[in-house]
Amino acid sequence: MTAFFDGIAPVTYKGPDGDGDLAYRHYDPDRVVLGKRLEDHLRFAVAYWHSFAWQGGDPFGGQTFERPWFGDTMEDARLKADVAFELFDLLGVPFFCFHDADVRPEGASFAETTRNLEEIVDVFARKMETSATRLLWGTANLFSHRRYMAGAATNPDPEVFAYAAATVKTCMDATHRLGGENYVLWGGREGYETLLNTDLKREMDQMGRFLSMVVEYKHKIGFAGTILVEPKPQEPTKHQYDHDVATVYGFLKAYGLEGEVKVNIEQGHAILAGHSFEHEIALATALGVFGSIDMNRNDYQSGWDTDQFPNNVPEVALAYYEILKAGGFTTGGTNFDAKLRRQSLDPADLVAAHVGAMDVCARGLIAAAAMLADGSLAEAVAARYRGWQMPWAERMLASPLDAIADLVATENVSPRPVSGQQERLENLVNRFV
Amino acid sequence: MTAFFDGIAPVTYKGPDGDGDLAYRHYDPDRVVLGKRLEDHLRFAVAYWHSFAWQGGDPFGGQTFERPWFGDTMEDARLKADVAFELFDLLGVPFFCFHDADVRPEGASFAETTRNLEEIVDVFARKMETSATRLLWGTANLFSHRRYMAGAATNPDPEVFAYAAATVKTCMDATHRLGGENYVLWGGREGYETLLNTDLKREMDQMGRFLSMVVEYKHKIGFAGTILVEPKPQEPTKHQYDHDVATVYGFLKAYGLEGEVKVNIEQGHAILAGHSFEHEIALATALGVFGSIDMNRNDYQSGWDTDQFPNNVPEVALAYYEILKAGGFTTGGTNFDAKLRRQSLDPADLVAAHVGAMDVCARGLIAAAAMLADGSLAEAVAARYRGWQMPWAERMLASPLDAIADLVATENVSPRPVSGQQERLENLVNRFV
Amino acid sequence: MTAFFDGIAPVTYKGPDGDGDLAYRHYDPDRVVLGKRLEDHLRFAVAYWHSFAWQGGDPFGGQTFERPWFGDTMEDARLKADVAFELFDLLGVPFFCFHDADVRPEGASFAETTRNLEEIVDVFARKMETSATRLLWGTANLFSHRRYMAGAATNPDPEVFAYAAATVKTCMDATHRLGGENYVLWGGREGYETLLNTDLKREMDQMGRFLSMVVEYKHKIGFAGTILVEPKPQEPTKHQYDHDVATVYGFLKAYGLEGEVKVNIEQGHAILAGHSFEHEIALATALGVFGSIDMNRNDYQSGWDTDQFPNNVPEVALAYYEILKAGGFTTGGTNFDAKLRRQSLDPADLVAAHVGAMDVCARGLIAAAAMLADGSLAEAVAARYRGWQMPWAERMLASPLDAIADLVATENVSPRPVSGQQERLENLVNRFV
Amino acid sequence: MTAFFDGIAPVTYKGPDGDGDLAYRHYDPDRVVLGKRLEDHLRFAVAYWHSFAWQGGDPFGGQTFERPWFGDTMEDARLKADVAFELFDLLGVPFFCFHDADVRPEGASFAETTRNLEEIVDVFARKMETSATRLLWGTANLFSHRRYMAGAATNPDPEVFAYAAATVKTCMDATHRLGGENYVLWGGREGYETLLNTDLKREMDQMGRFLSMVVEYKHKIGFAGTILVEPKPQEPTKHQYDHDVATVYGFLKAYGLEGEVKVNIEQGHAILAGHSFEHEIALATALGVFGSIDMNRNDYQSGWDTDQFPNNVPEVALAYYEILKAGGFTTGGTNFDAKLRRQSLDPADLVAAHVGAMDVCARGLIAAAAMLADGSLAEAVAARYRGWQMPWAERMLASPLDAIADLVATENVSPRPVSGQQERLENLVNRFV
Ligand SMILES: [Co+2]
Ligand SMILES: [Co+2]
Ligand SMILES: [Co+2]
Ligand SMILES: [Co+2]
Ligand SMILES: [Co+2]
Ligand SMILES: [Co+2]
Ligand SMILES: [Co+2]
Ligand SMILES: [Co+2]
Repeated sequence: MTAFFDGIAPVTYKGPDGDGDLAYRHYDPDRVVLGKRLEDHLRFAVAYWHSFAWQGGDPFGGQTFERPWFGDTMEDARLKADVAFELFDLLGVPFFCFHDADVRPEGASFAETTRNLEEIVDVFARKMETSATRLLWGTANLFSHRRYMAGAATNPDPEVFAYAAATVKTCMDATHRLGGENYVLWGGREGYETLLNTDLKREMDQMGRFLSMVVEYKHKIGFAGTILVEPKPQEPTKHQYDHDVATVYGFLKAYGLEGEVKVNIEQGHAILAGHSFEHEIALATALGVFGSIDMNRNDYQSGWDTDQFPNNVPEVALAYYEILKAGGFTTGGTNFDAKLRRQSLDPADLVAAHVGAMDVCARGLIAAAAMLADGSLAEAVAARYRGWQMPWAERMLASPLDAIADLVATENVSPRPVSGQQERLENLVNRFV
Repeated sequence: MTAFFDGIAPVTYKGPDGDGDLAYRHYDPDRVVLGKRLEDHLRFAVAYWHSFAWQGGDPFGGQTFERPWFGDTMEDARLKADVAFELFDLLGVPFFCFHDADVRPEGASFAETTRNLEEIVDVFARKMETSATRLLWGTANLFSHRRYMAGAATNPDPEVFAYAAATVKTCMDATHRLGGENYVLWGGREGYETLLNTDLKREMDQMGRFLSMVVEYKHKIGFAGTILVEPKPQEPTKHQYDHDVATVYGFLKAYGLEGEVKVNIEQGHAILAGHSFEHEIALATALGVFGSIDMNRNDYQSGWDTDQFPNNVPEVALAYYEILKAGGFTTGGTNFDAKLRRQSLDPADLVAAHVGAMDVCARGLIAAAAMLADGSLAEAVAARYRGWQMPWAERMLASPLDAIADLVATENVSPRPVSGQQERLENLVNRFV
Repeated sequence: MTAFFDGIAPVTYKGPDGDGDLAYRHYDPDRVVLGKRLEDHLRFAVAYWHSFAWQGGDPFGGQTFERPWFGDTMEDARLKADVAFELFDLLGVPFFCFHDADVRPEGASFAETTRNLEEIVDVFARKMETSATRLLWGTANLFSHRRYMAGAATNPDPEVFAYAAATVKTCMDATHRLGGENYVLWGGREGYETLLNTDLKREMDQMGRFLSMVVEYKHKIGFAGTILVEPKPQEPTKHQYDHDVATVYGFLKAYGLEGEVKVNIEQGHAILAGHSFEHEIALATALGVFGSIDMNRNDYQSGWDTDQFPNNVPEVALAYYEILKAGGFTTGGTNFDAKLRRQSLDPADLVAAHVGAMDVCARGLIAAAAMLADGSLAEAVAARYRGWQMPWAERMLASPLDAIADLVATENVSPRPVSGQQERLENLVNRFV
Repeated sequence: MTAFFDGIAPVTYKGPDGDGDLAYRHYDPDRVVLGKRLEDHLRFAVAYWHSFAWQGGDPFGGQTFERPWFGDTMEDARLKADVAFELFDLLGVPFFCFHDADVRPEGASFAETTRNLEEIVDVFARKMETSATRLLWGTANLFSHRRYMAGAATNPDPEVFAYAAATVKTCMDATHRLGGENYVLWGGREGYETLLNTDLKREMDQMGRFLSMVVEYKHKIGFAGTILVEPKPQEPTKHQYDHDVATVYGFLKAYGLEGEVKVNIEQGHAILAGHSFEHEIALATALGVFGSIDMNRNDYQSGWDTDQFPNNVPEVALAYYEILKAGGFTTGGTNFDAKLRRQSLDPADLVAAHVGAMDVCARGLIAAAAMLADGSLAEAVAARYRGWQMPWAERMLASPLDAIADLVATENVSPRPVSGQQERLENLVNRFV
């Protein structure tokens, strides 16, 4: 045991009126909702990068956190791993997620970097023998190092493409070895800063080829998890090729990958793209590509990615409602891609942020399950489209334009608008949240 | 001749130092650039709706314009047509565009509405015998009438779908009869206000079927023009299914229509979707679906569609640069989907707005042509990707991930970042605009 | 009784598990919170314009509502008044608010328009003898008519200034006669569309003079209510002179009116200005100009004023927390400056929207009161600034720069950062909402 | 001479058709416009921080630039100063600007930090004996160090206030010693992250006192320059107290400082606040607080501060038009608060960015001067307000509300809307840019 969380006891469920800052008031992992334990519904994951690697900088200021493991040695990396698993245990969280760059120091060469990763993967593997925490997904950081400043797969320099591909191979190996349930690609540098120096078509083709390599390698090594792409519209790159769910879907179709790759949807990225989180989830479900979520919240009034811990139950409930409607997670889960505010310096802040977020998610999921069980919302939707079940409507839908025009003219079709009842449905939701 | 433009002479090219408010200083239709007349490059069109049907309202105020043809009779519609063709002639503009609702009064029934449309189409046809102005595209207004408040093709009520389909049939007929070079669909109500009352998957399928009907009918009647969808992310509907070019592409792929339908890209809609105009054009070109443009400008700092006349030459130049790089317009053109500010009450304002916009576009296209002829930009792009022409790079791109990882480890690949030269390229552009 | 609300019974408090769509589940007017009845805390008002005058149009579509009182006659206006008071009674709402243009038809002359207003004010006065609903505030609509397209007080034409001033006089008279507790000015057209045709300094001076006239007239007639300005950053005018609370404060200071005029803060306008609602309230409180609120919600992802009914309890709670901290409303109240979605056609939708909003506000205020009573939040804030109570700190604050520099150098002052505890405080709030 | 700019010759004016990447095509410092040399109009300054201290990081990636002076020693700082003055000389730029943190390493104590600063100020002073480049302004960096994470003047900890005050004292001394023409305060951390832990009123009072100290110290040491506050709405702090020009004006009025302090307006910050650059300049002029500008450009579609070099001549022209209308700069100037894109690695990129920006500004100012000399725009504005010069209008403006109401009723005042001519004025501007 390190000293980092000294004085902080494992977080347990104490009920809505429980005492203390660091207790679950709503997240009771064993509570059964719609026939499944809350833990199995929510499948929470801690994100290694924000919680252990981020130093508190922003565009106008540097490091604010002072963690004993900040440094570039393997020893630092091992201490970080110790503290990470201590947090996983304190929280009783079933999953974690990591990038290679979060967990190991960069070496002097690709080979050394790979050895560093492998060594830490060994550390993780040993810890996971005794910890209850498993790996939700692994991923490669193809955006922080200056070699990626002009893209990874989409770089004008084929050496960068090769370096990125080699790196992903090592991260897929690591994920496979640790029993990860998914592998994620986030393309922060896969886009462009200015069209003036960019061959857009070529870059998209490079990215299509890269993703195909990933899918091929998955099958080669027998990785049974899901390959996920995480859409984001901008930041760091001004324009990113995997802008939002619809864009990623079109991309997958263009390269024939729609049966092989799904999406990991982040609330903050949905918002930056001008969508609601529930829209992106519903759209992915409709298109058959829903995979997993990065649960956080974005300041709606900032144009950048604030990656805050979720704290608005009504919003979260709408997201889980779409997920539950679609049958819930399979290999996916709820990853907290969220970071402390840079003034939240204390170890207890790190625990509190996760506890609060897990409670908010639990409240949201319980409310969503109640909405689903109640059925009134679903019934209102079904009623609204009921006209389409009439035989004439089905015939009409199969007719050509001119036949429909004849029908409308002959029958003097003149549709009567009916209320969409938005406020009533919003009130209905408010009974559950 | 009506009295509306009394005192305003036909607008002619007078050169940069010409006199008068209402003269072309840059748009010389016969000037040859890159082997083609400016008129044939730019293919300007006046939009009937903004110029003749819009009354000056905004969300907090009503009509400001007082036009003699405002009213609901066929006589009003004929007077409007007279004035419209007078404007086309004054400007010497080669094209116009219209919705059915712009040109004819709504009748008491679908049949009467159709007869009204046909009668005005006859009026147009007669005028076009003597006018030099042709039809760039026709379209159906499936968004203003309250019957469409919950969608046209995506309406929960099949009667509305039928009414919309029948209406499109009449508009395609009208466009075909008038020799239109394209037919456009804009889905302002094809989206949703709240997910709570929406079956997203069903609505997208309805829209897919609708678009297929349009394509089938095009072939049935032998319409040789291009079918275009105009992307827009929001407004009027909170979320629209044809959000942006990438979304429309994915939609077309999902319904097997990517070989049949292209896009009409509006600057204002590109901006509302978080993209630059040139991005949307370049993306459509890369995806093989570029069709036509709605040239206007959106206030970058308003979150709604301001539809202003273009007035920033450097911005416009970048858009035409992408178009010229891709070979220029075929059936498409430059439609001014732009409206006067609501305080611009005078007939002369309507002329001035178009004159200014045409000059801005002419300057933009001339600059773009010079950039293309100069070749420095294209050479800088080509040089940036030159590494991909090396044999090793081509081999690598065809290899599997693990082979690439071996290569990187063995050869100790360590890419060297090079400058992206954004500022230099921006300076280069500024020599031409 | 009109037939408009046929079948809808008066809305009563039935508790959280009460039956029916149209019942209060949380708003129990007589429940005492922090020593005051909920009704007296919240001081709800129905807005005449959205509920009775708005026809459902948006920039791409016209009227969707069909109300029997839509028309331009005094008879229509009287029917509208009947229905309005029926809604007030159904809801048991203690206040309403109106513009002149909401309640009376425009006449052929200023004199006739004034007579129309006076006649309706008589109607209101008679109704208010028996109704429990009072007037929270009156206001003049100086933005819808085309005469105001270039501003009211800030118009380049002094005749418009005169017309606006005369109109405000009649509206202040009406408000005074009906016992209104405030008089509001909202300057939707007080701003500019383009700097190119604008003399900004002159326009601000005109507006300063106009506001001074209003204050002088208030005292002349003995109106005991509060004069309020409602900030809004844009829409309809591109730039408005009363952009946000800080801007209005500077304006009041510039014209010596900060002791006479307060602000009416709308959630939607706060958001359009890039602020949170609670920020604007807290700032107005700090500056001594807080007056009243227009409670609604704005879609954070639309750049225009969506004026939706509030439905997010956690957000609403934070607003009321700031209000309660500052002592609660005096003459101000909670006006629902919110409109139905344009598809919500039914009379029951109008009732449901208010019922849901009132319940959301009641939940928010009850939560805010609990946060205040609990005191933990306030204590955390007090603790954070406690250092300023040290004598050295007070002395330092009164010292000149160079003395402080000496102190810092001599004492080797080296401040130690401490956690801001944002997540913990957010968790704390979540215990109450 | 260092080797950094090896191979780059001093940049000279070569005219529009001059050769080479690194030549002025429009900025001829000696060209006389409106009776003044271009150099004296524009008063260009290079910003030390972006050009020499920024390392190329963004929120998702670290350092991309590799400069020989990156490091924490005084030797590094001296090398940096050498290169800086070499750039000033290469460009022939009349001014530079700096923060303390840009130019000296942080010491182990306040005293050591101050000595480091003084030593570099000596270096600057010696260089300025032979260089033609003077100091436009100095400023203190009160935002990067973690001690300022919760504010400088507005910090909950009085020790931080003291440290900040002491630091400003040393920076004012440095600026005074180097003959700086202004002293700037930018309050990046003067605001809050969450209201939940913030006493807004107290923080504003602390900031008011801080600014008063600065003004008092200025007079004490006889600094003849102007004290400037630079407004910015958000980023780094979520909400900043000096949000925009109007907010700063209200703040100055509240603390009685409006006669002592002016504003330094940055284009990017204007845009983040929802304003145009020219709006902020015109407003500051109208309020009597215009001081200086930070010329850059912000991506309109990013919600963060992109600080790009200006490159759009029409936009820049409108800003200079407002400045020239107000009489031009006095102590202020055009500071390039702009940074290279992080992929622009080469020394030549740094030169090219400034050359391009200076040319863009020169073109803008020349166009603005021509617009002013032409007079048509000013005449159009004057004509629009001419009605206010009528004696009845002046009398009316001095009357009370009820007298105006009498006038309007008696005379049947009924204003006639006239065109605002926005498009014509925009066309007019386009003749000059
Ligand atoms: Co994420
Ligand atoms: Co994110
Ligand atoms: Co359009
Ligand atoms: Co548009
Ligand atoms: Co309001
Ligand atoms: Co509003
Ligand atoms: Co700046
Ligand atoms: Co900036």
